[in-house]
Amino acid sequence: MQIDGRAYRTIWVDPDDGWSVRIIDQTRLPWALEIVRLTDAAQAAHAIRAMLVRGAPLIGATAAYGLCLGLRADPSDAALEATATLLAATRPTAVNLRWALDRMAARLRPVAPAARVAAAYREAARIADEDVAQNQAIGRHGLDLIARAARAAPGRAVNVLTHCNAGWLATVDWGTATAPIYVAQATGIPLHVWVDETRPRNQGASLTAYELGKAGIAHTVIADNAGGHLMQHGQVDLAIVGADRVTRAGDVANKIGTYLKALAAKDTGVPFFVAVPSSTIDWTIADGVADIPIENRAASEVAEITGRAADGTVRTVRVIPEGSTAANPAFDVTPARLVSGLITERGCCAATEAGLRALFPERL
Amino acid sequence: MQIDGRAYRTIWVDPDDGWSVRIIDQTRLPWALEIVRLTDAAQAAHAIRAMLVRGAPLIGATAAYGLCLGLRADPSDAALEATATLLAATRPTAVNLRWALDRMAARLRPVAPAARVAAAYREAARIADEDVAQNQAIGRHGLDLIARAARAAPGRAVNVLTHCNAGWLATVDWGTATAPIYVAQATGIPLHVWVDETRPRNQGASLTAYELGKAGIAHTVIADNAGGHLMQHGQVDLAIVGADRVTRAGDVANKIGTYLKALAAKDTGVPFFVAVPSSTIDWTIADGVADIPIENRAASEVAEITGRAADGTVRTVRVIPEGSTAANPAFDVTPARLVSGLITERGCCAATEAGLRALFPERL
Repeated sequence: MQIDGRAYRTIWVDPDDGWSVRIIDQTRLPWALEIVRLTDAAQAAHAIRAMLVRGAPLIGATAAYGLCLGLRADPSDAALEATATLLAATRPTAVNLRWALDRMAARLRPVAPAARVAAAYREAARIADEDVAQNQAIGRHGLDLIARAARAAPGRAVNVLTHCNAGWLATVDWGTATAPIYVAQATGIPLHVWVDETRPRNQGASLTAYELGKAGIAHTVIADNAGGHLMQHGQVDLAIVGADRVTRAGDVANKIGTYLKALAAKDTGVPFFVAVPSSTIDWTIADGVADIPIENRAASEVAEITGRAADGTVRTVRVIPEGSTAANPAFDVTPARLVSGLITERGCCAATEAGLRALFPERL
Repeated sequence: MQIDGRAYRTIWVDPDDGWSVRIIDQTRLPWALEIVRLTDAAQAAHAIRAMLVRGAPLIGATAAYGLCLGLRADPSDAALEATATLLAATRPTAVNLRWALDRMAARLRPVAPAARVAAAYREAARIADEDVAQNQAIGRHGLDLIARAARAAPGRAVNVLTHCNAGWLATVDWGTATAPIYVAQATGIPLHVWVDETRPRNQGASLTAYELGKAGIAHTVIADNAGGHLMQHGQVDLAIVGADRVTRAGDVANKIGTYLKALAAKDTGVPFFVAVPSSTIDWTIADGVADIPIENRAASEVAEITGRAADGTVRTVRVIPEGSTAANPAFDVTPARLVSGLITERGCCAATEAGLRALFPERL
């Protein structure tokens, strides 16, 4: 996507040296656009763990490139397995991480060590390019949902609510939940996006608002508490979110708070869609509440907030009293019964095993 | 309640001069305990509007004392009506404001202007004292609910979730939602409170966590997004919140986001109670979603957050990109069907017209 007239992906191989990996440090947005250079697997693991990159598809792509960097240092079988294990342990919830590493390892194990580095970069590039293509397809399929909402609301903008950032910054490009929004914008449908702030890390306020602003899409940031009220009063036409893992039965693990918005959407009759590439689907489990591991992150993410002070400096302030503690579950699971449908690269389907089977017969 | 060994109410008449009104400036908590002196009705109106005082019962008491200050300057009939109108216009959602002003005006209109000031202070003191007594009664009635949860969870602390601050800082003393917690603590029931941060103004993180900490009650601050996940995983035994207005049919206007927690409680089978003195009940309306005015506050409350920087200074930081805007509905309405029961000064009842009629037959 474009930032101030220049096209970016969220991850790319440095064109000058042909091997180091460049990412946008998303912890610095929206206040600074800072490009970071990754030169070994440990740096890639750190970038994932510390959330310089985040978003299930981008985590997967970063892990793939992290494996390339690890093999550059040591292309042996042992190093391949050890590096994959290192990268897989960075974050527990997004299944794309495991998916990308499994795919890379399956591709590279049969390759002779001397040829592994080149093969790894080719496969990582394929993963990245496929992500872009899949998100564009998600955008085309999701467009129908927005176009339907536009027909039901002639003469005004379609109000879409989204939670967290499932935008192009969460993927290699285009985004999952935002892809239909960008495609709808391109077709001339008037849009307005309610952007959930998404505490504690504020990916909505800091990333989604940033990218919608850069794309010229009307949007309003709201506290995470506000979405139910807006839905109750007819101010949301549809909700679209991304996911970190979807079970084969359609349960959705996504950023903490998604479940609450899905409940409100169900209660108020607002369609609630989840946009995911198939790499986000975990075909091995059905019950998301029971079987998806939920990452607990540092209490400091709740206790402290970073923003820009009046003097222009970026500062972190503590927002809970000394002596109080905080808990920080990073994801929750939205049961499939609350999901109106899944938007995948092959089309939309019900959030059920039958729905997914119809689109992905080879997987079930 | 006690702060560092000294007993406070949230509002009191200065004992030295016998007429000026002292309040705790709650916008400075938890970083500073600053007492502000109010000397005229305009200052009282400002204190309510700018949320130096907040919480439906405390807003009512402050309005009552604000009328006293106004009558001190001019005890005429015209000034009585004008001051009541000024104070009533400060905030739209909490019905206690109107209730307190109506009660004061009804008491004072028949009194000769020369005797009005003394009568006003007497009536305001009665309102404040009654609030304290009512909250203590709410605490006794609510204790049964916590004791029941304790019996169902032997050998561990009872987990109570609360949203916003319906603590002693929201009332004259004791609190509404927290009164049962303080009474349970006094009876030796082990407790742990999940404190919703309560964006955008963070009254949970800054006020509820502060007062629970001062009272020595175990608590953990969570992002507003987290409560549904905790309920899904059996980590909440019951939820208790306060309210700014309850309709005669049991619909509950409370801090934005309450509706989302009530939905999650319903979905997961967690009891969800609303603690209110009868001054919070609006007997004139039934449908809360349709008929309770919801205050929209400044976008800056979403766009900016205040906290303590590493250097110890209290600073405000912007948390949304330049060029993005925010919306800030301050309350939402939880339909009565999601409320397990109301805890009032006369006992607990169903959140229905029949339930309220049984406790308050003279009102319906």
